[in-house]
Amino acid sequence: MEILYTRNELIKYRDFIKSQNKSIGFVPTMGALHQGHMSLIDTAHQNSDIVIASIFVNPTQFNNQNDFLHYPITLDQDLELLIQHQCDAVFMPSVEEIYPNNYQPFKLDIGELNHLLEGEKRPGHFDGVIEIVFILFDLVQPNQVFFGVKDYQQVMVIEKLIEKLNRNIQLFKCNTVRDIDGLAVSSRNKRLSPEEREISLNLYATLQKMKESYLKVDISTLKKSYIDNLNSVENIHVDYLDVVDSQSLNSLIDWNPKDMNLGILAVYVGNIRLIDNLLF
Amino acid sequence: MEILYTRNELIKYRDFIKSQNKSIGFVPTMGALHQGHMSLIDTAHQNSDIVIASIFVNPTQFNNQNDFLHYPITLDQDLELLIQHQCDAVFMPSVEEIYPNNYQPFKLDIGELNHLLEGEKRPGHFDGVIEIVFILFDLVQPNQVFFGVKDYQQVMVIEKLIEKLNRNIQLFKCNTVRDIDGLAVSSRNKRLSPEEREISLNLYATLQKMKESYLKVDISTLKKSYIDNLNSVENIHVDYLDVVDSQSLNSLIDWNPKDMNLGILAVYVGNIRLIDNLLF
Repeated sequence: MEILYTRNELIKYRDFIKSQNKSIGFVPTMGALHQGHMSLIDTAHQNSDIVIASIFVNPTQFNNQNDFLHYPITLDQDLELLIQHQCDAVFMPSVEEIYPNNYQPFKLDIGELNHLLEGEKRPGHFDGVIEIVFILFDLVQPNQVFFGVKDYQQVMVIEKLIEKLNRNIQLFKCNTVRDIDGLAVSSRNKRLSPEEREISLNLYATLQKMKESYLKVDISTLKKSYIDNLNSVENIHVDYLDVVDSQSLNSLIDWNPKDMNLGILAVYVGNIRLIDNLLF
Repeated sequence: MEILYTRNELIKYRDFIKSQNKSIGFVPTMGALHQGHMSLIDTAHQNSDIVIASIFVNPTQFNNQNDFLHYPITLDQDLELLIQHQCDAVFMPSVEEIYPNNYQPFKLDIGELNHLLEGEKRPGHFDGVIEIVFILFDLVQPNQVFFGVKDYQQVMVIEKLIEKLNRNIQLFKCNTVRDIDGLAVSSRNKRLSPEEREISLNLYATLQKMKESYLKVDISTLKKSYIDNLNSVENIHVDYLDVVDSQSLNSLIDWNPKDMNLGILAVYVGNIRLIDNLLF
């Protein structure tokens, strides 16, 4: 596996691949890699000739300094996993390499998406995501990119960015990978104590119960009861829990049987903020 | 969920969807649905506006009459699973509906693919696959189609068909879903006895061991030893086991560290023929 630290190394590698008429599949990450990322790498291998990952903990997308400072770093293990899954190259730039002194930020107006759910709760987060993904796409020039729908709203933001770039990048939205007990895999799970890991099972269980109530219970009653249920668990605090239109992410007042509805939530388990979602 | 039995019903539904400018994701199946199919339906939901599945046990792709006659039919359970996963419509035509009397078969020359591995062992199989998939694509007019790479060679055949059709169909090659113990999920697993289910774990275990030997043991030694190992298990009979180039499916004599290598096998467990593969 090629390990690329600088913009120049990456560009040289990318141009070599392009000169062979091979397609590039790209999986951007913040490290702390897990089976969710590996599923993206595997899917990339099936759909692209060459797979490039990046590991970069992007400071500009953290609205919470504490979350940034405690974001797990597991570099040796990350590289081992990438090698096991035959990733062809990994780009691991420094912050200075990505944001040089003369750096001009890229901005994109994503409208309502910036004010709903994660947009509301994590001000500036998606601006940071857009900034880093724009830079990475510009450097890697991928043909295919692979994102997990656990970060459902993020994938919608990336879709808007790709539309804007108009550069024939194919977006693959990949299924959420779950542990056997249902917990969506996430880098932040590494920070959970065994007790917190146990109670975090309530997130997916809640989404499943919400799905079972689809069309049966009115949405406001359902939301209130599941928010109360979750908050009644010691050490759990609901940041948001909603039923939204899966295309717009607007809150639904009534079930919409014509389109897909999305149950979506963000919940603090102790100090760790976890997110999950389920289509129904 | 719309249940469509005839070509006309399907065409009417499809035209209605197209008139709304919605994209159609298509998952063709032979029924006996399992978590692998559901993973395709879920991925389709994430990447298309409307998801159409088909259930049709296509007689022309069975080279073995006995396999066709015993192919599992679990229609009630199939419909329940599709409803659970919010499939929008399912097309369940009769054989006469698909192959009317005046039917003119569609042929496509896929070259070597028809003579290697599954092509060699199941003469006529891919001709049948091409025939049915051509008819279904023509009727459904999908924007995206979703196939699992458990049937690795089949996905390559579909890719060639899509190239030929030149109709802007986006192919998603989706990861193999495995049971917790590693067995690739397959409709044919339903026909295994508990003892056969147990020994069938040897398939994936063998692929994993082959992967561990990557670059370390020469390929012919490795193939011979794993074929012998598998055949030494009572009730197991290897149909083929090979290490091939993942792009051409040609047998490799030496490891090719520049491109992906594919371990691929077909094994009889009792009377049931199972296939699996792993990239390395």
